[in-house]
Amino acid sequence: MYSPSDPLEASRPFVTWQRILDWGQEHYRYRTFSKDERIPTRPGLLYLVERGAIRLVGTSQVSASPNFSGAQCSHQNMEEAFLGFIGAGQPFEIVALSPFTLQAYSHVEQTAVVWMYWDDLDNWPHFRREILDAFRLQHQRKLLWLSTLGQRRTIDRLLGFLILLVEEFGEPCEQGYCLPFPLTHAQIGSAIGSTRVTVTRLIGKLRQRGIINTQKDNLICLSGDSVPKITPN
Amino acid sequence: MYSPSDPLEASRPFVTWQRILDWGQEHYRYRTFSKDERIPTRPGLLYLVERGAIRLVGTSQVSASPNFSGAQCSHQNMEEAFLGFIGAGQPFEIVALSPFTLQAYSHVEQTAVVWMYWDDLDNWPHFRREILDAFRLQHQRKLLWLSTLGQRRTIDRLLGFLILLVEEFGEPCEQGYCLPFPLTHAQIGSAIGSTRVTVTRLIGKLRQRGIINTQKDNLICLSGDSVPKITPN
Repeated sequence: MYSPSDPLEASRPFVTWQRILDWGQEHYRYRTFSKDERIPTRPGLLYLVERGAIRLVGTSQVSASPNFSGAQCSHQNMEEAFLGFIGAGQPFEIVALSPFTLQAYSHVEQTAVVWMYWDDLDNWPHFRREILDAFRLQHQRKLLWLSTLGQRRTIDRLLGFLILLVEEFGEPCEQGYCLPFPLTHAQIGSAIGSTRVTVTRLIGKLRQRGIINTQKDNLICLSGDSVPKITPN
Repeated sequence: MYSPSDPLEASRPFVTWQRILDWGQEHYRYRTFSKDERIPTRPGLLYLVERGAIRLVGTSQVSASPNFSGAQCSHQNMEEAFLGFIGAGQPFEIVALSPFTLQAYSHVEQTAVVWMYWDDLDNWPHFRREILDAFRLQHQRKLLWLSTLGQRRTIDRLLGFLILLVEEFGEPCEQGYCLPFPLTHAQIGSAIGSTRVTVTRLIGKLRQRGIINTQKDNLICLSGDSVPKITPN
């Protein structure tokens, strides 16, 4: 029988992970999504990516236009911002705070997700702590992301953004480290407060300077020296 | 004697908070800072704000300039970005990931901070969970913040940013909700990827439209309808 303080369980997180997957399947809380399908989410639920990758997207319906008093909605003005990926083994949750909306999409084919209430994790206290630590690390990364978005030159924001993404998800390749999934220039633009056209032009510049190069399927690669490694505590 | 599973302790977090303060003072891990003083931090340590407010600032030394190969440092190019406040009762931690740097400053006089190793929290498991939940909530807010930074019009980014700050820290006032501490236009500009001059101009516009108004001491206020309330899970 499972005991919350079982030291073996604590030292072998993959055992817990397998149990959670089994539990999700038994309780019909496991589903596989096709590329670009929206994940139906509810605030208060916790989602775990089993395989594939999730694309987080935010919409801000803030408009300072004079015909609206205060922060009201204007659908013409709705812009989706790319907020990052959630890779396999990582948790995510979706909160609502009008006028802001977060949404999750399956970024690649066969992305599988398990969901649960936070209370369900009472059965797996070690795992709960892992989840909370994972959110803590995600939060640290978002602070770094915000640091780079504070830069005034768009090309610096673009490079900082790519460095952070590749540092987190990059896989070693001949040229250095390569992002394992494609990202459109419009998506990059939405993350760094710029446009598709500008991103295309600036990526051309970075390519000319030998800082990045593009693999087949438009995968973005950075040379090895450009990619730092975050130090886990 | 303290027992980790003491239900009384769990239901009265302020008791734990007082014990942690006492512990911090006994172990010389408690200090009060003057306004704008930098908090000396080390990665791997956890910091708790007892009173006052901390200003988090990020520096990104990414430069895509042609005279540098890749993401190298250029001190002329260093820009500090305002990443938010950490209020009383909230935790923070500072990670390092070259070429990005985070720093914490005391934002108001008499800001008091306690610090500890994560392992020190083994004595207060309930409190540990609270800290991790606090980071989870901070993370959710940063995602909303990133959503608003993805907007193309600077004035929309500015308003979204102010809404989020006032929603988190605002105090009720005659005009609606008021930020309890001052924030310079240069600091706002650094957060939304703009300049002091532009922020001053756009704040003037928002003021003309009656969306915001400024209290004595330059404190920013938003009208009540503009400020949403985040729903905790």
